[in-house]
Amino acid sequence: MKIIRSIEKMSDFSKTLMRKGKSIGFVPTMGALHEGHLSLIRKARTDTDWVVVSIFVNPIQFGPREDFKKYPRSLKQDTRLCSKEGVDVIFYPDTKQMYPAGYKTYLTVQELSDCLCGKSRPGHFKGVTTVIMKLFNIVRPDIAYFGQKDAQQAIIIKKMAADLNTPVRIRIMPTIREREGLALSSRNIYLNTEERKEALVLSQSLKLAKRLIRAGRTDAAWIIRNMRRLILEKKKARINYIAIVDAENLKPISRITDRCLIALAVWVGKTRLIDNIIID
Amino acid sequence: MKIIRSIEKMSDFSKTLMRKGKSIGFVPTMGALHEGHLSLIRKARTDTDWVVVSIFVNPIQFGPREDFKKYPRSLKQDTRLCSKEGVDVIFYPDTKQMYPAGYKTYLTVQELSDCLCGKSRPGHFKGVTTVIMKLFNIVRPDIAYFGQKDAQQAIIIKKMAADLNTPVRIRIMPTIREREGLALSSRNIYLNTEERKEALVLSQSLKLAKRLIRAGRTDAAWIIRNMRRLILEKKKARINYIAIVDAENLKPISRITDRCLIALAVWVGKTRLIDNIIID
Repeated sequence: MKIIRSIEKMSDFSKTLMRKGKSIGFVPTMGALHEGHLSLIRKARTDTDWVVVSIFVNPIQFGPREDFKKYPRSLKQDTRLCSKEGVDVIFYPDTKQMYPAGYKTYLTVQELSDCLCGKSRPGHFKGVTTVIMKLFNIVRPDIAYFGQKDAQQAIIIKKMAADLNTPVRIRIMPTIREREGLALSSRNIYLNTEERKEALVLSQSLKLAKRLIRAGRTDAAWIIRNMRRLILEKKKARINYIAIVDAENLKPISRITDRCLIALAVWVGKTRLIDNIIID
Repeated sequence: MKIIRSIEKMSDFSKTLMRKGKSIGFVPTMGALHEGHLSLIRKARTDTDWVVVSIFVNPIQFGPREDFKKYPRSLKQDTRLCSKEGVDVIFYPDTKQMYPAGYKTYLTVQELSDCLCGKSRPGHFKGVTTVIMKLFNIVRPDIAYFGQKDAQQAIIIKKMAADLNTPVRIRIMPTIREREGLALSSRNIYLNTEERKEALVLSQSLKLAKRLIRAGRTDAAWIIRNMRRLILEKKKARINYIAIVDAENLKPISRITDRCLIALAVWVGKTRLIDNIIID
């Protein structure tokens, strides 16, 4: 397994592979790898000739009061995990290379970026789409893999790729959960034992919603009220948002008939957690 | 020579060429080709294995009161010219394919897009960078060619390509002029005989500036005043802007010491013309 730190070298390497007719599967990450990331890597491993994983904690997708500085970094363990999964290349650039002085270019996916998580994290998705476009241009993958856990991100990246005609197929893979239901996230490490227990309420509230819909309930506001009630039973939980939206355009829906996304963000202590399900 | 109208076909075609190790030279245009475009095509012809010219009048770079509808279109003549110059592929997509309903993704190069032409044409450069990124993703060229006549566009595209790590080299080629100095532009067709004569004042004022600088003048404001005086002698000329700026960051400079760009936009009758020189 190669670890490439230079943008230029990564770019040359990809070009060589491409010229040889090799396909590249790409898993962009911010490191602190968990089973969710590994599921993407395994999928890439079966789909494509070469697997590239990028590890880059992207400063421009963090707000000024967010956790950029304390975001978990664990290169050694990440390297071990990647190597074990048969990753061919870890691309590990530094911030100065990615955003040199005088950096000025940004991508925005209008509307989709302003709601849900985008509302409480202004600029977040602009940071995500910008770094993903940069990484696509450097790594030039055939297929790139993202997790359904970041539902809004997945929808925005698919939209960006389609709108900009990027020659990259986007694959969204299912959320990986702990046995009790907690969606895997690098940020779960911030939770203490009590918070970790309370954090189960995110997936529990989604299960509740699913049950209610299965039972024939279609009033989105009523379902949200029930989710809210369940979450507010937890001492340390503070709801950021609960939303039932169209799974394509992210517009709120009042009556559940078609494919919809139920998404929520909840602060548990000082940690903001997200989760979602798609109802078909 | 092939004419390809479908994005998918163009994309597949480029991929095939790339896999064969062929290099692609790309000249993106809005059609109404003149000697300026042809000079780019000739350069591409000598640099690369395959030459692709796109012809697409990009609606999103026109303001609501600008000349999108009446912008000259001359596909037949353009095709003849391209064929004569040994172009391999004309890529000629339609607007519905390029911007399908629900299109949402835009690129911005901050600061550089807001001054000079960007000031009187808000959103113009956002439209330009967005379409160029789309075209780069579809055509996947090794080198793309632009004219120095659109100086600000050239600087912005170079910045965008560098910032986003696009695997495309950007080459800027010199402005082509008529014998009397008028910079070639598809919009020159709008000028009547009298206006065409008066339009010479753009290049004349740039020559004047160059002469003054050669003579040791370094006060940018004083040079601009002299250019202004010359232009105002023309009955039909209305100055949009005259600027002396840093040739990299487009910031105004007051004293000419280093490499600078002298750029101007002038309305002659109902036609807005631009021109520029770089002083080394």
